[in-house]
Amino acid sequence: MVGSATQPLDATSAVGVDIGGTSLRAATVRADGSVGELRRVALPATAEGLVSATVTLIEELCAVEATRPVAVGVGCAGLVDRSGTVRTSPNIPALVNHPLQQDLTDRLGLPVRVDNDANAAAWAEYRVGAGQGATDMALVTLGTGIGTGFVLDGRLHRGRNGYAGESGHVTIVAGGLPCVCGRRGCWERYSSGTALGRLAREAAAAGRADAVLALADGDVDAVRGEHVAALVPQSEPGAMAILAELGHWTAVGLAGLVNVLDPGVVVIGGGLASIGQPLIAAIETGYRDVMVDHDRREPISLVAAAAAGDAGVIGAGLLALGR
Amino acid sequence: MVGSATQPLDATSAVGVDIGGTSLRAATVRADGSVGELRRVALPATAEGLVSATVTLIEELCAVEATRPVAVGVGCAGLVDRSGTVRTSPNIPALVNHPLQQDLTDRLGLPVRVDNDANAAAWAEYRVGAGQGATDMALVTLGTGIGTGFVLDGRLHRGRNGYAGESGHVTIVAGGLPCVCGRRGCWERYSSGTALGRLAREAAAAGRADAVLALADGDVDAVRGEHVAALVPQSEPGAMAILAELGHWTAVGLAGLVNVLDPGVVVIGGGLASIGQPLIAAIETGYRDVMVDHDRREPISLVAAAAAGDAGVIGAGLLALGR
Repeated sequence: MVGSATQPLDATSAVGVDIGGTSLRAATVRADGSVGELRRVALPATAEGLVSATVTLIEELCAVEATRPVAVGVGCAGLVDRSGTVRTSPNIPALVNHPLQQDLTDRLGLPVRVDNDANAAAWAEYRVGAGQGATDMALVTLGTGIGTGFVLDGRLHRGRNGYAGESGHVTIVAGGLPCVCGRRGCWERYSSGTALGRLAREAAAAGRADAVLALADGDVDAVRGEHVAALVPQSEPGAMAILAELGHWTAVGLAGLVNVLDPGVVVIGGGLASIGQPLIAAIETGYRDVMVDHDRREPISLVAAAAAGDAGVIGAGLLALGR
Repeated sequence: MVGSATQPLDATSAVGVDIGGTSLRAATVRADGSVGELRRVALPATAEGLVSATVTLIEELCAVEATRPVAVGVGCAGLVDRSGTVRTSPNIPALVNHPLQQDLTDRLGLPVRVDNDANAAAWAEYRVGAGQGATDMALVTLGTGIGTGFVLDGRLHRGRNGYAGESGHVTIVAGGLPCVCGRRGCWERYSSGTALGRLAREAAAAGRADAVLALADGDVDAVRGEHVAALVPQSEPGAMAILAELGHWTAVGLAGLVNVLDPGVVVIGGGLASIGQPLIAAIETGYRDVMVDHDRREPISLVAAAAAGDAGVIGAGLLALGR
């Protein structure tokens, strides 16, 4: 049981937990989206370690804030079914068919809701972030891979099993680059932090990105997406050309999402979102080039995420409050 | 005004109209999905001709059935916005930014709802066809191109502007075959009746489809998808190999839709659906090969359309009844 039985239930706050790529993070989240102190620990490698660390983190938060939350929300990468069972997770390979929601409910004595992390982040952007006021919104996070979450007609879209939004593995180049998923030509191979690094190394090797290469001490293999990002604020031509390539490939997949879903608002999040407006501009240019009937359609609103790195925690908390 | 003012309003029937590739079709549709006599005329080439022909068709139907419908529903290919204005339509190039819903409302003196044709067909399959009982369903029609319509969480998904479901122009082979839309590598270039014909001609030219070629009197250029379809019932190896190719490419795009939307049920409609179970089996085989984490997911239910050619008329009528 979390908190003392004599502590009042706080009907307006939940704990939001984000199971990220390298860390486990949690904070108290209030209904208006404001968050308390954020705590983080290194991501455990086992399922049991994850459950224990999550319980400890929540207990610490309750002690610090002297409240007892009404619920706990958890966002986790991977296939999370509608019962909150994690079918597979890229970050914790040991987490296979693990009933995380049931497990945490039993341990915490609180209502727990486990959802996909991009779904949680999309809900945060929709409710309190860059997607406020939209009826249909897509969040596209560009990080190690691509995560997407959709709010359609004001509701989070989970799909039949809860697996909606695995758009990083949509094929955009059949027979193209091999993907970590075992298939080829997945969108996230062409548009992500990983892809930015590859595009940068290709440009550096071809002599098209000397300034970028210089930041990696002339070692092509050491070139990273961060080196490109570092040169964007000064509009260095080689870096901008690489960013334009990334924008093109992001737009190819994004045009597919718009053809399928027609969201009015597309929020760009994830690590690459820190590049800010130049990234948005590069995607917009690419989208204008690749979107069918672009000039006959109402324009989409393409915006950078507002909650950014905290969106997963905030959205998980808000989803738990909205149970 | 449609019908005589002394005729009773029939609160349980609407007229459904389908603006197809070559014809305009209409029938009375009751709430249970049953239809009266179906009437059709050749598709007019102008917007004014279309409106006049639609009004005439509906007046004739009302006279024949001696009822006055409560509403009229129209399904039209192309970008149809939420006000029922046809922004563009591939079948009637003259129909650009035409407020068809308002126009027909004014002429008929009845509530009219104009929607995308694949949306209407998807609604028919969901309500009274192969998608009954689903919570999340995708209709994929394989005809001249690809049409898709989605019912998500029990509701027809239209998107912000009404343009959801234009999945035929999702890029699956960046830089691939040129498409009628002006872009390259669109899904419908690889999976449609048009694509089946191309795959058949390629196989015939390469000496891999002699039986198919024989049906076209040995003229490669005369080979059509119909020749393949004609040989499928006898499992002719050359035809089956072409069908397998089509199944693969259909699956590439379908896997993308499942990654994005996670529908539990996928209904295959359009002209190619007349091939029936062998087509479904070919798509299933392709899907097993290309879908990420296929073995870790709940299987999708892939089924042939039930309403088939009438789905557009039925769905348009049901949508009008459900206003």
